[in-house]
Amino acid sequence: MTGIISPSMPVIVTKDLMSGKMVYSTFNEGGGKVLWFGAFGSETLERLRWMRDVLGPVMKRVVEKAGGISVWNILAQGIQMGDECHNRHAASTNIFLKSIIEPLFSIDLSRDTALQVYRFIAGNSHFFLNMTMTGCKLAMDAARDIEDSTIVTAMSRNGTDFGIRVSGLGDNWFVSPSPLLLDALYNPGYGPDDGAPDIGDSAIIETMGLGGFAIAAAPAMASFAGGGFQEAVGITKQMGLITITKNSKFGVPALDFEGTPMGIDIRKVVETEILPSIDSAVIHKATGAGQIGAGIVKAPYECFAQALMAFGKKYDLAA
Amino acid sequence: MTGIISPSMPVIVTKDLMSGKMVYSTFNEGGGKVLWFGAFGSETLERLRWMRDVLGPVMKRVVEKAGGISVWNILAQGIQMGDECHNRHAASTNIFLKSIIEPLFSIDLSRDTALQVYRFIAGNSHFFLNMTMTGCKLAMDAARDIEDSTIVTAMSRNGTDFGIRVSGLGDNWFVSPSPLLLDALYNPGYGPDDGAPDIGDSAIIETMGLGGFAIAAAPAMASFAGGGFQEAVGITKQMGLITITKNSKFGVPALDFEGTPMGIDIRKVVETEILPSIDSAVIHKATGAGQIGAGIVKAPYECFAQALMAFGKKYDLAA
Repeated sequence: MTGIISPSMPVIVTKDLMSGKMVYSTFNEGGGKVLWFGAFGSETLERLRWMRDVLGPVMKRVVEKAGGISVWNILAQGIQMGDECHNRHAASTNIFLKSIIEPLFSIDLSRDTALQVYRFIAGNSHFFLNMTMTGCKLAMDAARDIEDSTIVTAMSRNGTDFGIRVSGLGDNWFVSPSPLLLDALYNPGYGPDDGAPDIGDSAIIETMGLGGFAIAAAPAMASFAGGGFQEAVGITKQMGLITITKNSKFGVPALDFEGTPMGIDIRKVVETEILPSIDSAVIHKATGAGQIGAGIVKAPYECFAQALMAFGKKYDLAA
Repeated sequence: MTGIISPSMPVIVTKDLMSGKMVYSTFNEGGGKVLWFGAFGSETLERLRWMRDVLGPVMKRVVEKAGGISVWNILAQGIQMGDECHNRHAASTNIFLKSIIEPLFSIDLSRDTALQVYRFIAGNSHFFLNMTMTGCKLAMDAARDIEDSTIVTAMSRNGTDFGIRVSGLGDNWFVSPSPLLLDALYNPGYGPDDGAPDIGDSAIIETMGLGGFAIAAAPAMASFAGGGFQEAVGITKQMGLITITKNSKFGVPALDFEGTPMGIDIRKVVETEILPSIDSAVIHKATGAGQIGAGIVKAPYECFAQALMAFGKKYDLAA
């Protein structure tokens, strides 16, 4: 349930209706010269000011009028419509738009402003991405701090390091160097030498079993894997070998509506050496050029091995 | 290109930009007690009056302001999003909505009226169906009257008869009894004894290679075939055996974006005895109960055999 947004520094607020816990995200700025991809010119700042002054306050009223927006409901439909809900959010963003049109054009607001907000969202097929992240974060937070659990509750990367957290191992992060995106498609003029190591907190989506884990639902993404539909199905099936369950909320059409594989078990990763597959963007390593490509990256083995060692130590298990 | 709509008896007007030819359709009324499914009570008439007085005139202005709507563009996206573009139009209707929001809320119109029109369309995931039919009709009309051609340019049924037209055979219809929908899912309280033989002109969609021919793009429809994803793929592959080409406009994601099979050849149907597969609705045979189920129906063999005999006769071919 996505809800109230603060008017001064606008963020998305998503609430776990079971626990009451809330998490936060900025709004998605779209593509091009945007802060979330490292750009910071005047065009970027002007857009951010508009998001602070117009988008945020309007969305606060719209989402309140809508009585909140169910993130899960939209993602479940998106998976039926070709989104894997990380690198492809085209259908989910359309469904989100459908959820807000009525409040957006019903509240007391100038038509021009309402249309401005509509155009901004309609022009960015990734607008729903940041809401997806909040939903996934809440779901995985609900799995934290379970005694004896070997389930991964977060994967994140900052362009230098890649870290994971494990349910039974408290607040510790297990960290290795962040991998480069070798299997990526680059924008014209850019190549593997230009990209920074993998970056961003969006791998919380794969931690929850969408994105790279659900790629069989989005064959359009398979070209990033250098392959076709069968390669996409192969990745989702492989992810089933390192997870403990299938998420029945998200039925993959091409797998006869089998749920997405969910709940990465560090024991299975270490034993099989199958690494979590993450759909990601490539950001330029030095300039403010922003996104220069997109592709698939594998989580590094080392942090899973470290976590398993720590697990053995904490729970006093013989090696 | 869908365009101007007459204000007195509102119809969709779709134009072939190559030939200038125009075709027409009513607007889709939605589900429940609706005229297109044989209902005719006061609720139905009231809705039709609103469509005449409000929807039609508003849509005329909206579509003019939008500069026309490209039917092909929307269908090409729909196929990427789980629609087979006959019984499932959920994504296409969302994309259509996205195309009209800006004009709908920009023209000089009361907000209430704009919201009424929005709600009507947003509440009917089949709204785009009737535009799909106009696009398919134009495409198949462009294939009419080609000397020597054995390609089917229309399939239609009226609850009693099932007829086809063939490109090289002029305006003749080749007619057999319309089949019952045996592989259908019925609404509670209804069964195969209640249904009328197959009815409607929507099989122009299959004639153009969407709907039943594209069912591999919409695994959600496979349950109507009593099966799963592989059964859906099997139907699309089978339709490839009775058609002459693949339509590269409509790439089926789960078939590595192979185009939908298109151009039914009466020789192939007669030789293989593989019958065109049509996604359809079941209408009650007697009462005004409207739609009582949905499923898959096979075109009858006889009309293809008749057409082939007529072809042999017209072109003076030895039997």
